[in-house]
Amino acid sequence: MAAGGSTRTDRPGTNGHAAAPTPPGDAPVRQASLREHNLGLVLRHVGAAPRPPSRADISAATGLTRATVSALVDDLIGGRLLTEVDPAPRTGAGRPAAGLVLAANGPAGLGLEINVDYLAACVVDLAGTVRHRIVHRADQRPNTPAEVLTGLARLAAAARSAAGAQALTLAGAALAVPGLVTDAGLVRLAPNLGWRDVDVPGILGDHPALSGTPLTVDNEANLAALGELHAAPPGPANFLYISGEIGIGAGIVLHGKLFRGARGWSGELGHVPVHPDGPACRCGSRGCLEQYAGQEAILSAAGLAGHGLSPDAAVAGLAELADAGDAAATAALTSAGTALGVAVAGVVNLLDVDTVVLGGVYAPLAPWLRPAVEAQLRQRVLTAAWSPVRVRPSVLGGDAAVVGAAGSVVRAVRDHPARWLTVLA
Amino acid sequence: MAAGGSTRTDRPGTNGHAAAPTPPGDAPVRQASLREHNLGLVLRHVGAAPRPPSRADISAATGLTRATVSALVDDLIGGRLLTEVDPAPRTGAGRPAAGLVLAANGPAGLGLEINVDYLAACVVDLAGTVRHRIVHRADQRPNTPAEVLTGLARLAAAARSAAGAQALTLAGAALAVPGLVTDAGLVRLAPNLGWRDVDVPGILGDHPALSGTPLTVDNEANLAALGELHAAPPGPANFLYISGEIGIGAGIVLHGKLFRGARGWSGELGHVPVHPDGPACRCGSRGCLEQYAGQEAILSAAGLAGHGLSPDAAVAGLAELADAGDAAATAALTSAGTALGVAVAGVVNLLDVDTVVLGGVYAPLAPWLRPAVEAQLRQRVLTAAWSPVRVRPSVLGGDAAVVGAAGSVVRAVRDHPARWLTVLA
Repeated sequence: MAAGGSTRTDRPGTNGHAAAPTPPGDAPVRQASLREHNLGLVLRHVGAAPRPPSRADISAATGLTRATVSALVDDLIGGRLLTEVDPAPRTGAGRPAAGLVLAANGPAGLGLEINVDYLAACVVDLAGTVRHRIVHRADQRPNTPAEVLTGLARLAAAARSAAGAQALTLAGAALAVPGLVTDAGLVRLAPNLGWRDVDVPGILGDHPALSGTPLTVDNEANLAALGELHAAPPGPANFLYISGEIGIGAGIVLHGKLFRGARGWSGELGHVPVHPDGPACRCGSRGCLEQYAGQEAILSAAGLAGHGLSPDAAVAGLAELADAGDAAATAALTSAGTALGVAVAGVVNLLDVDTVVLGGVYAPLAPWLRPAVEAQLRQRVLTAAWSPVRVRPSVLGGDAAVVGAAGSVVRAVRDHPARWLTVLA
Repeated sequence: MAAGGSTRTDRPGTNGHAAAPTPPGDAPVRQASLREHNLGLVLRHVGAAPRPPSRADISAATGLTRATVSALVDDLIGGRLLTEVDPAPRTGAGRPAAGLVLAANGPAGLGLEINVDYLAACVVDLAGTVRHRIVHRADQRPNTPAEVLTGLARLAAAARSAAGAQALTLAGAALAVPGLVTDAGLVRLAPNLGWRDVDVPGILGDHPALSGTPLTVDNEANLAALGELHAAPPGPANFLYISGEIGIGAGIVLHGKLFRGARGWSGELGHVPVHPDGPACRCGSRGCLEQYAGQEAILSAAGLAGHGLSPDAAVAGLAELADAGDAAATAALTSAGTALGVAVAGVVNLLDVDTVVLGGVYAPLAPWLRPAVEAQLRQRVLTAAWSPVRVRPSVLGGDAAVVGAAGSVVRAVRDHPARWLTVLA
């Protein structure tokens, strides 16, 4: 893994591959960049088409000549970005033409996730299908960063093998971490892991499982929000994604794009004050949202902490109890939802988003959290009277960050196929 | 005033003039749009030059031929956008050339402001100089929207006369209101004025003072933030502008641009909850920031409410008392600054801005508010340990909104001089 490849996802020109030769706005368009543009055009058209289009269909839709389309399609097939499939039978006259689909045996994205109580990896193909997924549940807080990353590299190695066995090639890897990440992939601070200034690319670069694979590192809530934005069905153009885990993060999507703030450290929802004089938080402050609505705070309020249950089993148990009408469980979830609603009301008053997506463990707990969140929003959001805020669970649930990470690699290939072809050549 | 002219400021193509014939990205650049581009280029160069440049200086700096520059400059002088001034004496040989400056007798912007306890108007010329300013202090809450707007139209008429007397022509007007405004200039909600769905352009359009002048309506904190961004010295690329009046609003500037949120209703800082179970707010909720740090809350805590003092005199008196070390005054300001710091810490954790600008009445009170705000930010902002947040008073003080409004009109002319020339023709 090259150090230069350790950059954020979803930023043009920084996805770890060689930069495309894009001319400045007023320079003439060169032949090479025209080809790059048209490769992307054809690939996007196939990706978005409701059924496999023929070369003639693509020519008609894009305005490119049939000869140009054929040459581009041949390049994309050669680069394992497109595959020909049997034509659908036609009712009209003439020999039916072969249809084109995104290749199921071409480049894939490796998604990785470090969270407080689990590690995860997944492989997503060019069409966005999850082809491999593995979660290793274990509290990571007792481990050093190097130990955590060694554990993660093991999952990455298994994922690489699984990808290879399905004829997929990893175009890159993206890692989701619950903390503040710099452009160079340095984790400045991950309070719940106890990490400060951990050089993730520097450490992971030594592991053979990731050697030679461009790596990006990003905040887990940001990658989860991107996953949700590009899920099926896709997220709305404007939403606040809330990642409820042991820590609480947020990814802000505005006008269909991830909003990163001035320095890329936006979305620290877990440390928004709810009761300024409340209990002390790991971050050094008091009364932060995490103290009321973090996974451990909820389980503890419901009487489910300290029974030796795994966090996953405890969350599932909490949902079962709440479903059965258990008073302590429903009170704990209402209380957490109220605190969440207070913090989110402030965000909506500030940012004017109209949808809130409950992700992480909040997704399975949404039936009991949502009414309390909505009650606070109705009371506290200035625009709520004529423009109610929609609250809904995440489509991807607990997998949003790791699937979003893998998806960000695949989207970079789909957006810039010429770079992938250059890497292959 | 045309209804179509009642749109937001700072949005390209919606400043009330005819839209420029900008071709789509891949269409050939037509001669007309080339001229428009170059007119803007020359005007911006003159506006930014440290001393009056000659035609030859402009040619050298822009790469345009001397003949082209001369033709463009002639058009800009004819349109009263540029003026020739006496050349500075040269030390070298040759006849010194005439210098060019932005015209002091050309188009000007009319800024208008409605606030809870005052109305204001100002005229700003092309160089950004305030040429006229008037404030009418009176509580607007007892008045109907029509009465308030009639009062405002009187100020506008006086401002128009003052502009005419200085050979300035109003290119447009922009109105700052303390509330949520739609793209069409409708005030959806201004809680402290008690306004709901007030069609400001529809009502103001009947007043001769504004007839024929394109009008934009925007939130006062947004216009104040724009004023601060373009002030001398200019604001930083990323900041949160806080407008402290009877209500509290915020304008968010990120990467040098105003951030409006998903629907243009961002920045409602005054209704961010500070103590969720605190006192009732005019908005219908409880514990909003305005209840702790609004102008009336501060004056009341300092024992300065209900003495028949004008709000202005009361704020000046509060500053005097605080300066003299009065315990009630300093306690009131520390308490307000603490509440402000709690709310702003949440914003900074969410949006990752590195500068907070204290505007409105907070500007003169900044010496006593700032320490309490900074203490909360140090405690509560996750990134504060390695990247402290800067807190400073506004450069424009209480005039930020009305000067920002007038400036937004002038910037539209400077950014698109061809539109102004078309209007003149």
